[in-house]
Amino acid sequence: MGLQGSDSEAWPIEGVIELSFPDEETARIVYESVLYEHESVPYRRSRIEFLREGNRVIIRFLARDNSALRGTLNSYLRWIKVAIDAIEP
Amino acid sequence: MGLQGSDSEAWPIEGVIELSFPDEETARIVYESVLYEHESVPYRRSRIEFLREGNRVIIRFLARDNSALRGTLNSYLRWIKVAIDAIEP
Repeated sequence: MGLQGSDSEAWPIEGVIELSFPDEETARIVYESVLYEHESVPYRRSRIEFLREGNRVIIRFLARDNSALRGTLNSYLRWIKVAIDAIEP
Repeated sequence: MGLQGSDSEAWPIEGVIELSFPDEETARIVYESVLYEHESVPYRRSRIEFLREGNRVIIRFLARDNSALRGTLNSYLRWIKVAIDAIEP
């Protein structure tokens, strides 16, 4: 019972977060800053797709459990915040 | 510039997290435990829809900024973990 799941439920949590920026250039700068971190860190307890579409940055995820998801989302949201803070006047 | 957005972009972050449970009864127990917290706490910087559909518990959200979203998601994921821990043997 619970979120650990059986073999057939190995990734019981899924979701998506979409962040809209005022323009495509801003989205591109934030995306590329975070992409470097995204490509550097393997997440064995979460699977992440990190995408940009126009002025939106998109995080799609699959996670094995709640704690894995919290850790992963906190990292991505923190990296995005750092990137935004760097470009804000 | 950044995630604070203008008036027309008051809620620039949106997303959904879906948690699948082994059965509908487990999902219902977890959902009802967290529903109590959901109804008790007003989140002015995030808007949350908290739903159950069959064996899935669903969190849909709109947030004004990144920090608001992190705080909100951490709370919901923590409440869900407490509910799961309470029913696991």
